[in-house]
Amino acid sequence: MMTNHQKKFIVSLKQKKFRIQHNSFVVEGVKMVDELLQSDYEVASIFATQFWIENHPAVDAIEISEKELNAISSLKTPNQVLAVVKKKKPIISSDSKTLTLVLDNIQDPGNLGTIIRTADWFGVKNIVCSEDCVEVYNPKVLQATMGSFFRVNTVYTDLCIFLTEKKVNSIYGALLDGENVYTKKLNTNNSMLVVGNESKGISDNLLPFINERLTIPKIGKAESLNAATATAILCAEFFRK
Amino acid sequence: MMTNHQKKFIVSLKQKKFRIQHNSFVVEGVKMVDELLQSDYEVASIFATQFWIENHPAVDAIEISEKELNAISSLKTPNQVLAVVKKKKPIISSDSKTLTLVLDNIQDPGNLGTIIRTADWFGVKNIVCSEDCVEVYNPKVLQATMGSFFRVNTVYTDLCIFLTEKKVNSIYGALLDGENVYTKKLNTNNSMLVVGNESKGISDNLLPFINERLTIPKIGKAESLNAATATAILCAEFFRK
Repeated sequence: MMTNHQKKFIVSLKQKKFRIQHNSFVVEGVKMVDELLQSDYEVASIFATQFWIENHPAVDAIEISEKELNAISSLKTPNQVLAVVKKKKPIISSDSKTLTLVLDNIQDPGNLGTIIRTADWFGVKNIVCSEDCVEVYNPKVLQATMGSFFRVNTVYTDLCIFLTEKKVNSIYGALLDGENVYTKKLNTNNSMLVVGNESKGISDNLLPFINERLTIPKIGKAESLNAATATAILCAEFFRK
Repeated sequence: MMTNHQKKFIVSLKQKKFRIQHNSFVVEGVKMVDELLQSDYEVASIFATQFWIENHPAVDAIEISEKELNAISSLKTPNQVLAVVKKKKPIISSDSKTLTLVLDNIQDPGNLGTIIRTADWFGVKNIVCSEDCVEVYNPKVLQATMGSFFRVNTVYTDLCIFLTEKKVNSIYGALLDGENVYTKKLNTNNSMLVVGNESKGISDNLLPFINERLTIPKIGKAESLNAATATAILCAEFFRK
């Protein structure tokens, strides 16, 4: 049973301004919450159906009905459990031995979530987003990560300043007029890959930082690839062995 | 100015049952309609704002206000023009010299649209979907194709029957326990690549048809890749040069 106050609070977290105000966000569904419980995120509260609670006897949760869950969920098909989680200060891990992804103004929540999931598949630990990227705590982003959110650091910063200050071997960029990525020697060690906005590509003010322009050769007629798709193909090229 | 009858008809086409009943679907936005006009699809009617009509003087269109467009659009941000289009009988082109994608129970509209866009990038002409895949005329699918819909044939059929009858060199499958796709010799000539459902993978009854099991090696910890992402990485491997 949940109080009206709890219900109002959780529903408010669907909006970015309240996620900022309360420094909290919502994680939903069996798989996502299982991953959450294995992470080092601080859980403020868990609301779950009887079935979930019986399957997680060691977890402290407030029992709610399916109907109550439906009323607070952001999912089309609510799935047993919803957790309120404290944000933590994101930091780029000091492991600079592998590739860092740099995302410039990615707008689509599904794209950002999918990129985080792809990063997790390939062992990329750090993603640096421009401040105008979609927010990572957006429910649609979190859901699209399929749990990878908890294993990949995602920070938001001014990319011009970040790229100016960072000492790296190479800054690669995904561009339509670059060199054939299949024949290029790619170095993941202390390197970055910049991916641009879905329709505008990489911002003009970031282009001077890019010293290796990469292109996925086109055979057919599509104007471009989806941003998350292009990122995945490039990541596969970096990590193929 | 549009009649109430036209408005009702267009809004009804947001639902699959009316798209079937009227053998018609809706295409929206400047880019999509430009691609439509270059295709061999039969356009039943075009509704557009004054601005679009002035930019397309040779096209027969009914002028509507922004407000009228908002009332019939499926887009978050309606974009100048909406066309009602007749479906055409989809056929797999006889060009079997390249790879055919075979999609088993893909459910997410964004995934199907993105796969069609990726296919178009790599010159794949034909996609064969199981009957339980999301419908290609779904507005979200069409939008995610970014116009590639008009250049890739998408048919729906019983995959068991299709794979039984088809004489091909190889039937590849995207699986988690297959061979390393990076080191495998891949043949696009008269071959197929089967991609499975987002959560269940390839159906058990299709597995016997697959004679080459492909896996994208995992370095990190994500359980799986997004279906459209995996398809794109595999396509890139097939067509790299």
